[in-house]
Amino acid sequence: MAIFTMRMETKLISSTQNPLAKKILLLKEKSRERRKTGLFVVEGQREIELAQKGGYTLQTLLFCPEIMGSISIASFTKASSPEIIQVSESVYSKIAHRGTTEGVLGLIQSKDHALKNINFKNKTPLVLVAEAPEKPGNIGALLRTADAAAVDAVLIANPKSDLYSPNIIRSSVGCLFTNQIGVGTTDEIIDFLQTNQIKIYCAALTASKNYVDCDFKAASALVMGTEATGLTDTWLQNSDQNIIIPMQGEIDSMNVSVSAAILIFEAKRQRGF
Amino acid sequence: MAIFTMRMETKLISSTQNPLAKKILLLKEKSRERRKTGLFVVEGQREIELAQKGGYTLQTLLFCPEIMGSISIASFTKASSPEIIQVSESVYSKIAHRGTTEGVLGLIQSKDHALKNINFKNKTPLVLVAEAPEKPGNIGALLRTADAAAVDAVLIANPKSDLYSPNIIRSSVGCLFTNQIGVGTTDEIIDFLQTNQIKIYCAALTASKNYVDCDFKAASALVMGTEATGLTDTWLQNSDQNIIIPMQGEIDSMNVSVSAAILIFEAKRQRGF
Repeated sequence: MAIFTMRMETKLISSTQNPLAKKILLLKEKSRERRKTGLFVVEGQREIELAQKGGYTLQTLLFCPEIMGSISIASFTKASSPEIIQVSESVYSKIAHRGTTEGVLGLIQSKDHALKNINFKNKTPLVLVAEAPEKPGNIGALLRTADAAAVDAVLIANPKSDLYSPNIIRSSVGCLFTNQIGVGTTDEIIDFLQTNQIKIYCAALTASKNYVDCDFKAASALVMGTEATGLTDTWLQNSDQNIIIPMQGEIDSMNVSVSAAILIFEAKRQRGF
Repeated sequence: MAIFTMRMETKLISSTQNPLAKKILLLKEKSRERRKTGLFVVEGQREIELAQKGGYTLQTLLFCPEIMGSISIASFTKASSPEIIQVSESVYSKIAHRGTTEGVLGLIQSKDHALKNINFKNKTPLVLVAEAPEKPGNIGALLRTADAAAVDAVLIANPKSDLYSPNIIRSSVGCLFTNQIGVGTTDEIIDFLQTNQIKIYCAALTASKNYVDCDFKAASALVMGTEATGLTDTWLQNSDQNIIIPMQGEIDSMNVSVSAAILIFEAKRQRGF
């Protein structure tokens, strides 16, 4: 009976002109709006649950009974008590990316990604650093690899956008929520790594040291630049070792997430997984 | 004077209704049209030159003087004698992807990618096989990695589309032309690999053998399935060894081109690059 009573109080939005529907569209489109409100939008049961599992607070859950099928609202209310709002099919199809993302959409509170919040569980962490990554798809692929390798943290230097753009969330297939992510300037991150006695290995086409000749068993940060311009001089001059993946093709242009994966898994191999 | 005379004979297309302009749009959109004519479209100086260097015949070169700047037509006529056609800016912006791809666009003859044409230059080739890859971006990334690793061939089993879709050409950044590529059914490729005494290593989430515990120094084929469903049973049952990249994350979902790169560069490491 208690549950029934709660559901009776559920709000219903059936107009696409509703202020909350408009706010959701704005949160998806504008990083400024996300920063201002400290909220972002996640679609789909699996992604919302991964965010909750990753310590994010679900503030509001919108659901569309006609689309959500057998998904139970109760599965989202274990970790916190989100506001629950029912929306009509027409509203849902307007606020959701494809209109068919399982009929559930969450407004989730951003985390503070300051470096001081990074917490290492072991003494020889393996850290992935990406400087100014541009394409959401690349960031998503980096986060997927970082998750699979269970790296200890992903640090993003001088980000071009906030982490919570719908394209990054989508392309990370939830790995945005499973990785420990820190954000800072290049100077801040170099200082952080040095303070924590983590060796800095910078991937650079100008380097001569083959990555397989490095010992990544100690605390190590693998630092990747952009595909277009590589790492800035600040990184290259503050690294313990600049490294290269030897390439022997005609074009020698690998995707940044591919290069990162080669380095990360060489470190994993050396560490015995 | 000879060059001047040649240029005087250059055709000019200034109407977007011109049959050749329409044919180019059709070639870009329809794989059926590409198969029927044996032609495909490549934009940009670098890509056209890479195709020529890779042994492709440039049949027709279209150029737009207002856009192409300092690019010289002569650089495209060394390898063959393409028909040269001048187009107006309005025509070029209609037939080119972004309207600003350097003002040159080539109609290029397809190659025959039958397995019988694959030619190995060494006795222990390293081969990448992708079964039914779906996304053009993934195929492009696979080809970029294959180029950088200078693998001996890329074999595509049961392709979902032809190789010459504009999205594959673009995402491969020219690596479509620098790799030796074979196409066939899964059965044909397994037969080809066995006949050539190339060991078949199939990447599979169900496998238990860690890829780093394999010896890839002999002739080896690394076989990748799709992200959604992995490899078909035919591959898994005909492999010499099914292998896994150990993953320790929450989600364990890596991009197929990332997984392929990890395996390829482990083989490269074992082979001393």
